[in-house]
Amino acid sequence: MRAVDLIRRKRDGGELTPEEMDFLVSGYVRGEIPDYQMAAWLMAVVWRGLSRTELASLVEVMRRSPRPLRLRHLPGPRVDKHSTGGVGDKTSLVVAPLVAAAGAYVPMVSGRALGHTGGTLDKLESIPGFNTRLTLEQFCHVLKETGCALIGQTEEIAPADRLLYALRDATATVESPYLICASIMSKKLSEDLDGLVLDVKTGSGAFLKSEAEAVFLAELLVETGRRAGVRTVALLTDMDQPLGQSVGNALEVAEALEVLRGGGPADLRELCLELAAWMLVVAGLAGDAREGRQQAERLLESGAALEKFRQIIGCQGGDVRVVDDPDRLPRTRHQLTVPSPRDGVVVAMDCEKIGLAATVLGAGRARKEDAVDPAVGLVVHCKRGDSVAAGQPLVTLHYNAGEHLEEARRLVLESYRFADTAPEQLQPLVRRILGA
Amino acid sequence: MRAVDLIRRKRDGGELTPEEMDFLVSGYVRGEIPDYQMAAWLMAVVWRGLSRTELASLVEVMRRSPRPLRLRHLPGPRVDKHSTGGVGDKTSLVVAPLVAAAGAYVPMVSGRALGHTGGTLDKLESIPGFNTRLTLEQFCHVLKETGCALIGQTEEIAPADRLLYALRDATATVESPYLICASIMSKKLSEDLDGLVLDVKTGSGAFLKSEAEAVFLAELLVETGRRAGVRTVALLTDMDQPLGQSVGNALEVAEALEVLRGGGPADLRELCLELAAWMLVVAGLAGDAREGRQQAERLLESGAALEKFRQIIGCQGGDVRVVDDPDRLPRTRHQLTVPSPRDGVVVAMDCEKIGLAATVLGAGRARKEDAVDPAVGLVVHCKRGDSVAAGQPLVTLHYNAGEHLEEARRLVLESYRFADTAPEQLQPLVRRILGA
Repeated sequence: MRAVDLIRRKRDGGELTPEEMDFLVSGYVRGEIPDYQMAAWLMAVVWRGLSRTELASLVEVMRRSPRPLRLRHLPGPRVDKHSTGGVGDKTSLVVAPLVAAAGAYVPMVSGRALGHTGGTLDKLESIPGFNTRLTLEQFCHVLKETGCALIGQTEEIAPADRLLYALRDATATVESPYLICASIMSKKLSEDLDGLVLDVKTGSGAFLKSEAEAVFLAELLVETGRRAGVRTVALLTDMDQPLGQSVGNALEVAEALEVLRGGGPADLRELCLELAAWMLVVAGLAGDAREGRQQAERLLESGAALEKFRQIIGCQGGDVRVVDDPDRLPRTRHQLTVPSPRDGVVVAMDCEKIGLAATVLGAGRARKEDAVDPAVGLVVHCKRGDSVAAGQPLVTLHYNAGEHLEEARRLVLESYRFADTAPEQLQPLVRRILGA
Repeated sequence: MRAVDLIRRKRDGGELTPEEMDFLVSGYVRGEIPDYQMAAWLMAVVWRGLSRTELASLVEVMRRSPRPLRLRHLPGPRVDKHSTGGVGDKTSLVVAPLVAAAGAYVPMVSGRALGHTGGTLDKLESIPGFNTRLTLEQFCHVLKETGCALIGQTEEIAPADRLLYALRDATATVESPYLICASIMSKKLSEDLDGLVLDVKTGSGAFLKSEAEAVFLAELLVETGRRAGVRTVALLTDMDQPLGQSVGNALEVAEALEVLRGGGPADLRELCLELAAWMLVVAGLAGDAREGRQQAERLLESGAALEKFRQIIGCQGGDVRVVDDPDRLPRTRHQLTVPSPRDGVVVAMDCEKIGLAATVLGAGRARKEDAVDPAVGLVVHCKRGDSVAAGQPLVTLHYNAGEHLEEARRLVLESYRFADTAPEQLQPLVRRILGA
């Protein structure tokens, strides 16, 4: 078997057998197949795609680990949620403790901010002392103790994905639904789950702007999960404007705490409840989404979800006082209000620009090696359908250094589109549910 | 400027500016852009192709050399011929001395056998002592003395092509007409030519089997040559059966000598005369192809072409006695005749299988690092349109070791297709002339 022949086959639209996929990807991980051959194959995959059999075998090879997680001894169902990335999406901070409070185990391996989107790990690390760099032993310990633990990808979890992602990032081969699916599912299936809920974002703040692309990815994800024996549901959700009001790490933690206390912005609370409901369904803790939703609402009202979050923060070394006193979270020295340039109604937002505005202030990363400032970000006061008067605050920028302030202000203003009358009927927050 | 952005642009079907092409390819040659990024870009080029501007700028960057050939001081026009590769194609051995005998200078940089096709350098090296590994100084000296010199690609000639070809070979990115064109033309335009004739093969023994692909490549080649200020003509020629009768290095030299003596197989003599005629036209030594053809015929009849070949062989260290005594060329210990399995008429040949039969006997290379046996090969007695009786010799195999004899015999038999009646009208040897 020669790598060049497998590249040629994919280039010409052919299919690799599971043995050939193993030869290629395991060989790459072992350093026997060079970067340049893998890069050519990845570009051929961007071009030609993968068959369902190829995708399943790629995921199977990529999830392999010298030290796989084994969680079947836990006395409850294992369930997780994954989002394809958005702006202001802090739902993980709500649903992970909420579902753990319902008796499930949530072994959540999360990511960091990149480009215009935020990352759960950066948000958690804005809580003073919170440690997301646990060893696998510590991770399992926290999970067993609290029902939930949150870490980043380690050496042991889907090692092929770590290598392949770095190569894809350098070779413009990230944007393939097949490779995105393989990357997500190799990590999620490493968590030894019973159930998985995928939040596939679509709209101007999502990586996949078109709904058709998002639906295609959602279908691949659901099918891949099911083939691996995991109950999998995907929600296609709106990312045409930020979720909630806050964008930026500490600001988002504070907003997640509001939801956990029973308040918070309506759209954020709504999506948290929907995601939690489906997590309870795929975990087997609720018979259907309506029942799951009622459970989730009760766990918010009772304060059980908030208490669970406090417990997780404590177990992962964070300052639990932030739960009752969010002012202990990092705060910026300065704020600047961006006023509306006109009277009118907000009819659309370029949500990616809102995300980029937060990134240039330091909330995210243009490149992987950049550091983030936990305190900076922005709060959105007006969203689609809102009427505004000229001069009324649209957004408040939270910043420390002034150097990128003007760029952030410009991005915010560019992101808003106004009209004299209300917009046509808006898309619902949850557009479709796949795999239910 | 970042390589990943240029890869992404090409992946999405966009165009690179000349500055961007320079950044990418020169950066690669300098080792600043890694193999994996270049490999991804190459696969994106196989997918998306290149615009005419991109192709021109790629060729321009690839032909650059720290020590470019400067031949304008020579007191005659510089002209060369290049073939895309075929089976039994020994025309270079005839036309290079012939056109030099007419007063042109032929600075021919040639290739080696690969896959099912032969290479001019291997054929020349079957002449005892013939040295194709001249330094650039020696090359220029022989060229000035004799009007013709024949070498392989050196460190100085199109260094980017050497690197890129090795990478393409390992990443299944050889088969792109744009990259094939850039590879050929970066070398040929390094020869500082006035005129260039391209012999683009089409048919079962060519790399490009379909005529449409061959025409597309021929058009790219002609346009690229003209953009660079070189008079360029492409002949689309038949490779549905071997050219002439001999396939194998020493056997082909002997057959080329027959043509230079005024004899040889009709098809081989015909193509040599056509190619030489067009070389004389683009060199400005003939007003049109008819005039060029008459000149070429005279140079064969007079023996001037043969004398020129003798002179070149001598200047490059070869044994000139082979010119009058081809039996001094290496010969095999054994021969085996493959008889016809039936009565009938030859209606088609899978010409690639004839080439592979010679390769497995040792005349060519399955891999670049393989050695060739100068003596081995085969002689084809029956070609398309010939009537044969069962048992009559189809092919004679010339071999030293018997280990691949059976495979060669099988390939030969598989290559022939017989019928009871004569085939329909055959394609002409020269199917089209482009750029005339």
